[in-house]
Amino acid sequence: MSADPSSLADSLPDGMVVTDADILAGYRQDRAADPTAGTPLALVRPTTTEQVQNTVRWCAANGVPIITRGAGTSLSGGSTAVDGAIMLSTEKMRDIAVDPATRTAVVQPGLFNAEVKAAASAHGLWYPPDPSSFEICSIGGNVATNAGGLCCVKYGVTTDYVLGLEVVLADGRAVRVGGKQLKDSAGLPLTKLFVGSEGLLGIITEVTLRLLPPQGPASTVVGVFGSVHEASRAVLAVTAEIRPAMLEFMDSVAINAVEDLMRMGLDREAGALLVAQSDAPGAAGAAEVEFIQKAFESNGAGEVFATDDPTEGEAFTAARRAAIPAVEKLGSLLLEDVGVPLPSLPALIDGVAEIAAGNRVMISVIAHAGDGNTHPLIVFDPADPDEAEHAQVAFGQIMDLAIELGGTITGEHGVGRLKKGWLPDQVGSDVMELTARIKQALDPDGLLNPGVLL
Amino acid sequence: MSADPSSLADSLPDGMVVTDADILAGYRQDRAADPTAGTPLALVRPTTTEQVQNTVRWCAANGVPIITRGAGTSLSGGSTAVDGAIMLSTEKMRDIAVDPATRTAVVQPGLFNAEVKAAASAHGLWYPPDPSSFEICSIGGNVATNAGGLCCVKYGVTTDYVLGLEVVLADGRAVRVGGKQLKDSAGLPLTKLFVGSEGLLGIITEVTLRLLPPQGPASTVVGVFGSVHEASRAVLAVTAEIRPAMLEFMDSVAINAVEDLMRMGLDREAGALLVAQSDAPGAAGAAEVEFIQKAFESNGAGEVFATDDPTEGEAFTAARRAAIPAVEKLGSLLLEDVGVPLPSLPALIDGVAEIAAGNRVMISVIAHAGDGNTHPLIVFDPADPDEAEHAQVAFGQIMDLAIELGGTITGEHGVGRLKKGWLPDQVGSDVMELTARIKQALDPDGLLNPGVLL
Repeated sequence: MSADPSSLADSLPDGMVVTDADILAGYRQDRAADPTAGTPLALVRPTTTEQVQNTVRWCAANGVPIITRGAGTSLSGGSTAVDGAIMLSTEKMRDIAVDPATRTAVVQPGLFNAEVKAAASAHGLWYPPDPSSFEICSIGGNVATNAGGLCCVKYGVTTDYVLGLEVVLADGRAVRVGGKQLKDSAGLPLTKLFVGSEGLLGIITEVTLRLLPPQGPASTVVGVFGSVHEASRAVLAVTAEIRPAMLEFMDSVAINAVEDLMRMGLDREAGALLVAQSDAPGAAGAAEVEFIQKAFESNGAGEVFATDDPTEGEAFTAARRAAIPAVEKLGSLLLEDVGVPLPSLPALIDGVAEIAAGNRVMISVIAHAGDGNTHPLIVFDPADPDEAEHAQVAFGQIMDLAIELGGTITGEHGVGRLKKGWLPDQVGSDVMELTARIKQALDPDGLLNPGVLL
Repeated sequence: MSADPSSLADSLPDGMVVTDADILAGYRQDRAADPTAGTPLALVRPTTTEQVQNTVRWCAANGVPIITRGAGTSLSGGSTAVDGAIMLSTEKMRDIAVDPATRTAVVQPGLFNAEVKAAASAHGLWYPPDPSSFEICSIGGNVATNAGGLCCVKYGVTTDYVLGLEVVLADGRAVRVGGKQLKDSAGLPLTKLFVGSEGLLGIITEVTLRLLPPQGPASTVVGVFGSVHEASRAVLAVTAEIRPAMLEFMDSVAINAVEDLMRMGLDREAGALLVAQSDAPGAAGAAEVEFIQKAFESNGAGEVFATDDPTEGEAFTAARRAAIPAVEKLGSLLLEDVGVPLPSLPALIDGVAEIAAGNRVMISVIAHAGDGNTHPLIVFDPADPDEAEHAQVAFGQIMDLAIELGGTITGEHGVGRLKKGWLPDQVGSDVMELTARIKQALDPDGLLNPGVLL
């Protein structure tokens, strides 16, 4: 019954359709390593929108599902293969044109976030969103998940920077929504609808991004706390009054894992570390730094360190970014991404500790604390079935807790396949039904990224 | 065949359904004064979400269209009555709860924008979006049109501040999307889909808004130019390097109309006026002010005036805000809202002058120049059929020009009824079809705000 990919190859350049089993194997999973990933029929790595259209038209004609994959860094299984699907990788769609006059960049989806930043920077401009994986994640994936990062606490998330899109719809038509104009109230906000739609509504083939003038030099404040509870209170003390440019949290497990990896002299006895930045200019920046220092000290920080040296500051930011790979060296990870309204941050962090104890698993918490978005990292030995099961239970309990605290099961990674069981608990059955209606309207045959979200 | 509103009255508090013809007459039109406005069956002014639901359920059961109206300040006919419809006015839905801990406000839709600002300010917080009509426009209408304003050039538009919504769907169900969490990638971005949907997809009954710490004190720079062309070049010189907190444009007609109204000593000989603000703190603010002054001078400003006195600065901002009512005293207005990518601003402003000359009508241009969003005001005598017709022709030609320059027919007012004829030219037939599919999915009977946008 399955379609013959050689007929797809006819409409694409020679060699673009790959059916080699060894190569396909490398595209089955993303970083979520979903063990239920299927085996795709073929891999297509287009370079142009037209090639994406040809692929989608062939899939539509043959009833073949299509999974779009950026750099494969999804932590929620957003680009996991299903049996018999076409795996459409955007990795070769790498063009970018920066337009300093409109302060925009028009980008194909396969370019890495760091490459977008670099291209903007070459014109004296700045693309703010900065997922921790910015060096290896694609801008298309960022758009598909509405990715966040460290600077979002002050500068917002991906959707705030997407002015326009080109999208290939489920029937193969390519549409353009939005554009280089900074304000646009013409028609339904379709640009915004596609940002964060996790590949369910169309395939993003071009993104028009808003760029900013370069960020001013940032000062960094590091606080070393005896306990996670003190550190989370310090977060609230900071965010109650100011908008830092960064406010990151690491617990003792993460501190030690990073220290093992990077040997930078972090205090291994610390219960938690906060890394904050201010990029306010001049005296205003100095006042913010002083305010953050005092907020840390008055909430129990044993040591507070401030620097306006960018290299020193970047070392701490890099330490925080390294936390996930560092903790990953301790075992397999189930990576959470729950967020809560800020006042519930201490309750969330305390609750995660209880969940860890109750399930006898190690959970390391790192967080974009300034916007209430946490990444509890559940560490387990996959060879130990009991521990693996406890980890799964804890994974669900953390989402239940976030929902109970009025928060979200995912702040920036997307629902993907791993979290879809919890989405109805967060949003309710009416919103799920609304979601299904929109999916049905745009992809009536359900061929785009099946198994994700719904 | 028409339904009997007395059966609707049964499900609502006494007196909430109004059928008095004199009162209804006041709700037929909004500020766009569409002469084709119909006569509604009844007016309903609910105070609760449940009353909105009862009204929508009755309309759904009886096939009666429903037009949602905020404060009636739509300039594009977004809340114009159709014959036999229920006019649902949100003017009595006026609750607000500001939560300083999460820095959010939960607001019913009928509250004025200025009242939201005031409630936030009472807690030392700031709600940035500031349409010129902020003292008389409702926050629900702001959300329905994704309204902009003067500070958007630096602080973004309404959608950037909407974290969550309660929406009554076409079948009467109320759903909640988003919430107080600052980041949320769970599910399709439905919150964003409703912001700017012009009442076509549901009725917004509650808005959760993100608030900011208060804006710092702003310095104001006013530049007096000999010509609109010089002024529009000066806009580009400023925006190429910095992000001012405001950058507004008025032409000579507007300057003189405002001077007639306010007698504040504006230069009646000027060809154009720019009013810019910087709210960067301390030395950075001073540097921005100096940069703006130089950009004005080097682009031909005859006089440049800078002040850090907030009262003086507010006088110029108020002058700019008064421009529409002031020009309105010269005749009836057709009010444009076209936007272009910034480098095309001079071409747009020059082109509007040509359109005015070609049609022998007066067109005054005011603009949120810093984000390329202009309001050409076409002045005409409605008693002169020739002039009225020329005005209509110019109205269309300005939109054609904006589309030709890669821009939008509406930057912040919405398409409403007045501009829907031009929307397909801007977005194309595929996007129109996509729009219709989403409308069909959410409102299959087409009862929500019929005649708008589609």
